[in-house]
This record gives sequence, structure tokens and C-alpha cells, in this order.
Amino acid sequence: MANTNNKAKKITTIATLGSHCALQVLKGAKDEGFRTLLVCEKKRVGLYERFGFIDDMIIVDKFSEVAGDRCKAALKKKDAIIIPHGTLISQMSSDEIEKIETPVFGNKWILRWEADREMKQKLMEEAGLRTPRPVQSKDKISGLCIVKLHGAAGGRGYYLAWNRESFEEGAKRLVQQGMIRGEQDLYIQEFIRGVPVYLQYFYSPVTKSLELLGVDRRYESDIDGIGRIPAKQQLGAGGEPSYTVVGNIPLVLRESLLDEVYKMGESFCRAAERLVKPGMPGPFCLEGVYDSEGRFTTFEFSARIVAGTNLYVDGSPYSGLLYDEPMSMGRRIAREVKMAKRKNCLSSIVT
Amino acid sequence: MANTNNKAKKITTIATLGSHCALQVLKGAKDEGFRTLLVCEKKRVGLYERFGFIDDMIIVDKFSEVAGDRCKAALKKKDAIIIPHGTLISQMSSDEIEKIETPVFGNKWILRWEADREMKQKLMEEAGLRTPRPVQSKDKISGLCIVKLHGAAGGRGYYLAWNRESFEEGAKRLVQQGMIRGEQDLYIQEFIRGVPVYLQYFYSPVTKSLELLGVDRRYESDIDGIGRIPAKQQLGAGGEPSYTVVGNIPLVLRESLLDEVYKMGESFCRAAERLVKPGMPGPFCLEGVYDSEGRFTTFEFSARIVAGTNLYVDGSPYSGLLYDEPMSMGRRIAREVKMAKRKNCLSSIVT
Amino acid sequence: MANTNNKAKKITTIATLGSHCALQVLKGAKDEGFRTLLVCEKKRVGLYERFGFIDDMIIVDKFSEVAGDRCKAALKKKDAIIIPHGTLISQMSSDEIEKIETPVFGNKWILRWEADREMKQKLMEEAGLRTPRPVQSKDKISGLCIVKLHGAAGGRGYYLAWNRESFEEGAKRLVQQGMIRGEQDLYIQEFIRGVPVYLQYFYSPVTKSLELLGVDRRYESDIDGIGRIPAKQQLGAGGEPSYTVVGNIPLVLRESLLDEVYKMGESFCRAAERLVKPGMPGPFCLEGVYDSEGRFTTFEFSARIVAGTNLYVDGSPYSGLLYDEPMSMGRRIAREVKMAKRKNCLSSIVT
Repeated sequence: MANTNNKAKKITTIATLGSHCALQVLKGAKDEGFRTLLVCEKKRVGLYERFGFIDDMIIVDKFSEVAGDRCKAALKKKDAIIIPHGTLISQMSSDEIEKIETPVFGNKWILRWEADREMKQKLMEEAGLRTPRPVQSKDKISGLCIVKLHGAAGGRGYYLAWNRESFEEGAKRLVQQGMIRGEQDLYIQEFIRGVPVYLQYFYSPVTKSLELLGVDRRYESDIDGIGRIPAKQQLGAGGEPSYTVVGNIPLVLRESLLDEVYKMGESFCRAAERLVKPGMPGPFCLEGVYDSEGRFTTFEFSARIVAGTNLYVDGSPYSGLLYDEPMSMGRRIAREVKMAKRKNCLSSIVT
Repeated sequence: MANTNNKAKKITTIATLGSHCALQVLKGAKDEGFRTLLVCEKKRVGLYERFGFIDDMIIVDKFSEVAGDRCKAALKKKDAIIIPHGTLISQMSSDEIEKIETPVFGNKWILRWEADREMKQKLMEEAGLRTPRPVQSKDKISGLCIVKLHGAAGGRGYYLAWNRESFEEGAKRLVQQGMIRGEQDLYIQEFIRGVPVYLQYFYSPVTKSLELLGVDRRYESDIDGIGRIPAKQQLGAGGEPSYTVVGNIPLVLRESLLDEVYKMGESFCRAAERLVKPGMPGPFCLEGVYDSEGRFTTFEFSARIVAGTNLYVDGSPYSGLLYDEPMSMGRRIAREVKMAKRKNCLSSIVT
Repeated sequence: MANTNNKAKKITTIATLGSHCALQVLKGAKDEGFRTLLVCEKKRVGLYERFGFIDDMIIVDKFSEVAGDRCKAALKKKDAIIIPHGTLISQMSSDEIEKIETPVFGNKWILRWEADREMKQKLMEEAGLRTPRPVQSKDKISGLCIVKLHGAAGGRGYYLAWNRESFEEGAKRLVQQGMIRGEQDLYIQEFIRGVPVYLQYFYSPVTKSLELLGVDRRYESDIDGIGRIPAKQQLGAGGEPSYTVVGNIPLVLRESLLDEVYKMGESFCRAAERLVKPGMPGPFCLEGVYDSEGRFTTFEFSARIVAGTNLYVDGSPYSGLLYDEPMSMGRRIAREVKMAKRKNCLSSIVT
């Protein structure tokens, strides 16, 4: 940590990879007075050149070069900190991420817990979050279930089943498509009936407080389009839905739910502190469903900024309660770096 | 009224119950220069302490204490006005609300018309609003209907039927669940095919004008999630939907609908003035569905601020047309109190 | 063009028809320092009088009078420019629009390409946009298709079919309803499974750059309500969906989609320059669906401001990345006029 503290002591530039939420992050950094740097794939330079708040670019062929010597040297020269986001996680292994020598905002060790299904489940349980009940075998299916592939990326191949027959029918289709070898590659979870909600938090080690900065839901193709196909036509035409994230829709929650929202966020931070030091500094997200009793079941978490925060470049209904300026999640990150510099405690927010 | 005027003459504090839209209301009050006070349940103190714009709290075991001597004295000492919202209505009877001696913003007598189904229908008809057609008996069902329980809270037990058989099937299920004694506990309304819309109005007795300050739709569990379950799986798994409000989604309307929106709002205000003096000062909401002809059918009204306004803590696309500052409904209420104080006409906005 | 330049050289007033997005357009004009004028139907005067940023009104019986001598003279006297929107297009023929002598913002000749189905398709193809595959005959239907009426307005009569039988059943119903004479009045397109998205662009001839200023989806009745009717009840009650636009819902897109979004917009502008001089100055919209592979298929374009921009009276998450002030599409138009005046190049943005 002494080393971490040392390497981060004079951060003047905020850097990130050119995708996911880079625009929001660098806009926020600029608003807080930092220089901004984008690690940008060659093919995307044209896009990012449009935005005046990006001061510098390092152009790469692929994002994993961010850990290489050329980027490292350039980032060091600029006294840069990297803001990790979903693209970093999807383009680099946990091993590669942990070896990044440039200062990384937040806890880079926790990203492995996000990427690994079993570690993820362990952390959610440690936090006392309600998670979907696993269904032990196809004979135990009662009510709607979601069938998932071990180790599958995104939601590819997932299907809904409600009894043994519909489970087997789906498995057969996946075998025919060459996506699985057999039923042993599948596992079954209860399907939680309800509405999807994504909770966007920020935990500040500097102020020791948790902030809810926004709420959204994803906009997924084609699952969010099938409701626009009447039942008769759905049944006639057949087809299985997919869950490709296309964007996000803004939401607010009933105020009576907020107390539990904060409690879940705090439990998550404390669990992270116990399981993976230094814990959960910075942005994170709990992702789940509210059922008809108003209970939240958590499916996933993201231990870093999520793309749903892109809705709130100019602040959200929740950030408006906490800040008198437009406070995006990207700007909040930059604000935290600034505060930590002033208080000489950068080591608490950098790994 | 002289008495009302008297008791409210030096309001310096805006107070409300800690739930529903309290954050928005007190944030808006603070922005308008008032002191703010929250009547807060013990278990929620931790939540509300997070927000710097709340100056004082009165901690209670249950919200109905707001009418008790301790609260009354504390509120009087602070020269407070109470902003009523959905939690006040759900936690206290109309009798109890009418007996509150602390000044209440708006017309507390109209809250009884919101709470009582028959009075509610009477006021909507007086306003000339289109409302769903009642279906006299199960033999008269043609097309989709919604079956409701006399005196039920929320949407619990509601179901959709399209003929005598589906009506009877639903009734049988409710009898088995012990929710009704028999079909006589049910009544039937035509189901309006269309999309739900909530219209957020503010009527100012001070400026004598009506303002549309926002539009939203509710986000309900699990009814807003079933569209994400393909028809085949819905039919396979069975189950009845529920209508638990989880949050709200922002909307704008076609501009060509706005003229009728304003006319409906004005009719409602005039009808309220005729039926329940002093009428409809302050925020209210018409809640209904736009059908495929662009006609609005009103299901319900709320005669006070609704939670959908929480979307617009920093203003809405509609408030942006009327005000050059971010104007939430909460802030608009505080602004009205301020204007009424200046013009010495508090009695027109307080009961 | 010399003539155009001449007639527009001292624009001081921004004018539009009273519907669609007039409030946004005139609010934005006022924010940029213009006088504002509304051409208003008699029956809507009450609505528009509520808004303080409307300086003048010309009251008409019907909107087509805007091209008449009385309006022409009044607009000329005010040195006004007309901002065209959807109501202009729906209330006047392309011939009538092209004959308007008052300066029109943007390219009034391209509005004909929006209104005519074949010209529209030609421009989309010239731009290299992916469009839905036509299905040559009812015997070639495989998978879900949408059946449309030649020359129908809006989505009236459209239906979904998945095989020869369901096509014929729909055709029969339309014949019975007197909407078509026979199957020859119908044409068939593949139905793209996915989620609807509307991309709001602005192309500036002054700065020679394209801006994405917002993203939304429409809120349509009753198609966006049928997902709230469970499959069982849908099948029991029957009925065909309709696609009446009631409003709009805000969205953001995955940042990784933005590069293609900009490329599509630029291709569209270049194609417009080739096919219909002077091209695509000002606001336009590409309207389509993202499928489960994240590919965008364009159904339609609007070659002028769209109503979905009404969501962003105070700016959008995308305008927030480009401007440090709240920049609605309406304000952006006014800003362009202002810039063109300063640079003495009004002819590039006026026809």
C-alpha cells in the first residue's frame, strides 16, 4: 500500500478505455479540473475526436495494450489514474488487470470477484443479499425457471422453462446448436417474477459514506421488444428471446424502498471489506428484480461504474438530492480523486 | 377560514412525513428558503440523516402521531405547514386527517374524496372526465374487463376476464384464497386498451393558473415484467399478475394532446371548487390510459402530490417551459407558500 | 440560391406551427435571443397563451394558411424563418410546402423524400442503411412479417403474420372492414425482432459537423400496453394492436454503438447531398430497431425535427457532452441561425 500510495501521489490526469462510459468519465474529470486521456482503439478515434473534453489519446490496436510498456510509460508521464469499467473487464483477464502497474481507481482485486461466478455468489451471500434459489435438478422444477450455461458469456443460450419437458426441449435445442454437450452443462435457477432494477452506488472512503446516485433499467434486445408482439403472433412465429444490452432507461424508486437500498449497499461494502481488501471504494451496482411484495432479489453486481450511469451525465434525481451541481458518476469519481489528493489519502482509493 | 388564516400566518418551516416524496418536498422547500422538518419513523432516521437539507426531525413510532399533542406543539413552535402526500393518506383515516390542527397545505377535505371510491367517481364525473364503463353483470362481459374487489387496497386480487367463464374462474380462485366470500364482492369494469399515463398538475390559487409540471408512468411489479416473459412460457407456467408500484418512468406526451390535458385539469379544478371548498389548490394528478384514438380515460385521481414527481427533482421537460430554474413539484409547493405569504393570502392555500 | 440568401438575410424572428414541438422550438429560440412567433389554430390559442416565451401569434383556421398571403406578409414583416416539423408535413402536401415563400429552416425539398415511400426507400439505400427485407409474396413468408397497406397513413391496418394462413386471415379482416379491396393492396416486410430506437441528429452546415443530440423510443397505444396483458388474457380476448404515438420515453445507448450511430448519420447526410441539394442541414432522425446482434435496421427517417426531442427541453445526456448549457434541439436550431447570420452564410441553412 505504501507503494500504491507512492505511485499515485500526484495524479493530474484521469484516463480510461474508449468505450462503455468513457465519455461520461472524462467529461466529469474535465469538470473537476483534471486533464483527460483516452486509451482508444484505432477504429474509434473518429468518434472520440468529436468531444472537446478529451485532452489526449493513446491509440492502440487492442485494449489489453493498456498494461503494456508503451501505455504504462505514457500514463506515468501524465501522472494518470485509470478508471476501470466494463470494457476493461471484458477485454482483459483478472490476472492481466491485477498486473496493471498504472494506478487504478477503486479496488482492482474485487474485479475478479465480479468476473468469477462462484466468487460473485460468495460475496453476495456474505453481504446477506437475497439471491435466486438454485434448482437442484430438472425434476425439482416447479414454477418458472431460468436455465443458464456454465461459463457462458452474457445471456447467450439462456432459456425459460417451467417443467421437466420444457427444460429438456430447451437443452435439446442447445445441443443441436452445438452450444452445449448435454444437460450437464446447464444449471437451473428460479425465475423471479418482477421488474428489473439497477442500483447505482458510490462509496467514498474519503467521507466514509455511501451515496445512491441513480437508478435505471436496461433496454435489452429482443426481450424488451417481445412485449410488443401479441401473444398470438408470438406463438405462431416461435423463436427464443435474447438479452443483448442495447441501452438504458431512467427510473426512480418508491421512496419507501430507499432505506433497504441503502442497507443493501452498506452490507455489500462491509462484506467486500471482509473478503477482499480494501473493500468497495468508488462506484458499484446491484442488479436485480423487485417482486410483487416489493422485495429485491440480486442477480449480479458490478464492482465498478456501470453503463446505466450514462443516463445521468447531467445528474440524476438522486444526485440532485445530494449535490447542488450536476453530479454524474464520472464526475463523482473525479471529485473523489480530488478530495483524496487534498486530504493526502490517495492510497484509500487507488490500487 | 378566518381561523385557518390566523393559524397559518407566519409559516417559516415546511414539514412532511418521512416517506413517498419527502426528499423532494424538503429539498424544494430548502431551495425556496424555508426551514425543513421531517416527521420520521424511528426505523428510517438512518436514511433521512443522509440528506443535508433536512433541518429538524420529529421522531415517531407511527405516522398517525403527527396529529397528536407532541407533534402539534413541536410543529406550532416551528411555525410549520404540513405537506400531505400518499403516506399520510394510507396511514391515517380521512377523519383523522381532517382533525389535524397544524396547517395543512392544500385542501385537506378533498383527501376524503380521493380515499372513498364513490366520492372519487362522483368528482371525476362532475369534472366531465371519461371514466371506464362499469359492466353490470358477468353476463354482460364482452371484450376484456378488469374485475375488482369492493374496498380492496391497491390492486390486490384484481384480475382480467374476457367472458363469463374467465370471470367465474377468477372468482373461484379468490374464494379459495379467502379473499372474497363470493361473486357479490366483485365488480366489473371495461378494460381500456392503451398505455398508462400520469399527469402531474399544480393549480395556483395565488396566480389563478394551472400548470402541467410533468408526465410519467408507473413501474409496477410484476405486471411490467411479464412482457419480458414470452407467451409460450407465460402459458406454460401460469400465474396471475400483480400491480405493486415499484417506481416511475419519465415520459413526454405528443404536443397535440396538451390542449386536452390542460382542459381536463381545469375541469377537475372547477369541479372540485363546486363539490369541496376551497377546491383543488396545489398539486394533483390524473391517472389513466391513452387509447389508440388518442383519447384519455381517467381511472383515478390523486388530490395531492404524487410519487411520480420524484423523477423531476431537477425539473421536468414541462417545468422547463414554465420556469428558468429547476422546478420540482416540491419546490413549486414551497414557492406557492412563499408567494401566498408575500401576498398575505395564505388562507387560500392552507386548510 | 442568391434569391434564398437574399430573402433570409436579416432573420430576427423564429416562427413555427402550433403543435408537435412548437414549445421546445420557440423556448429555444427565445433562449438564443430571437423574437418568437407562433402560427396557431384558433382552438389552441388558450394552450399557447400559457407560455411566456411566445412573443406573437398569427391565428389561423387551418395550418395550410401559413403559405397564404396574410401569413406571408406578417412573417415577412417580422423577418421570420419557419421551422418545419411533423405537423407541417401532415397538414400540407409536398407541393404546397415547396411553394412557401417565407424562408424555411433546413432543406424543404427533402421533405418530399420523407413523405413519399419510394423516394424514402431510395434515400435510405443511397445512404447504405440496413432496411427491412421485402417479402415478395405470401408464399415466401417465413418467420414473423409485418403487412402494410400501400399509401396508408400512420400504422393503420398494419398487422403481423407468420405464414400464408395468418396473412390471408388478416387480409380478409381488412377487406371486411373496407380498408382494402384485396391482397393486392398489401405489401409484406420481414419483421425485425428487437427494440425500437430513435436517433436524434443535427447536422450543421456552419461548423460542418454532425451532432447526436438525443435518443428516445416512442410510447405507442396500444402496442406498448399489450405487454401488460398476460398471454392467456390476450388470447382469450383477441383484438389487433395499434400503433398510435402518444409520447416518448428517454433512452441512452451503449457507448460501443455510438461509432456506428455517427457513421449512419454521416452516410445519410452525404446521400442527401447527392440526391437532394443542399442535403440535410439541421435536425433529422433515423428510426429503427436494434436486434439481438446489436445491429440497427432503419425503418424510416424524418428529415426535420422529431417530437422525441421534446424529452430534452433542458438538454439530453448527449447534448450534455457537447454543450455546457442546456441545449435542446429547438435551441440548437436557433443557435445555428444565429451562427449563420454572424458568418453571413444563411443561404446554407435556409430554403
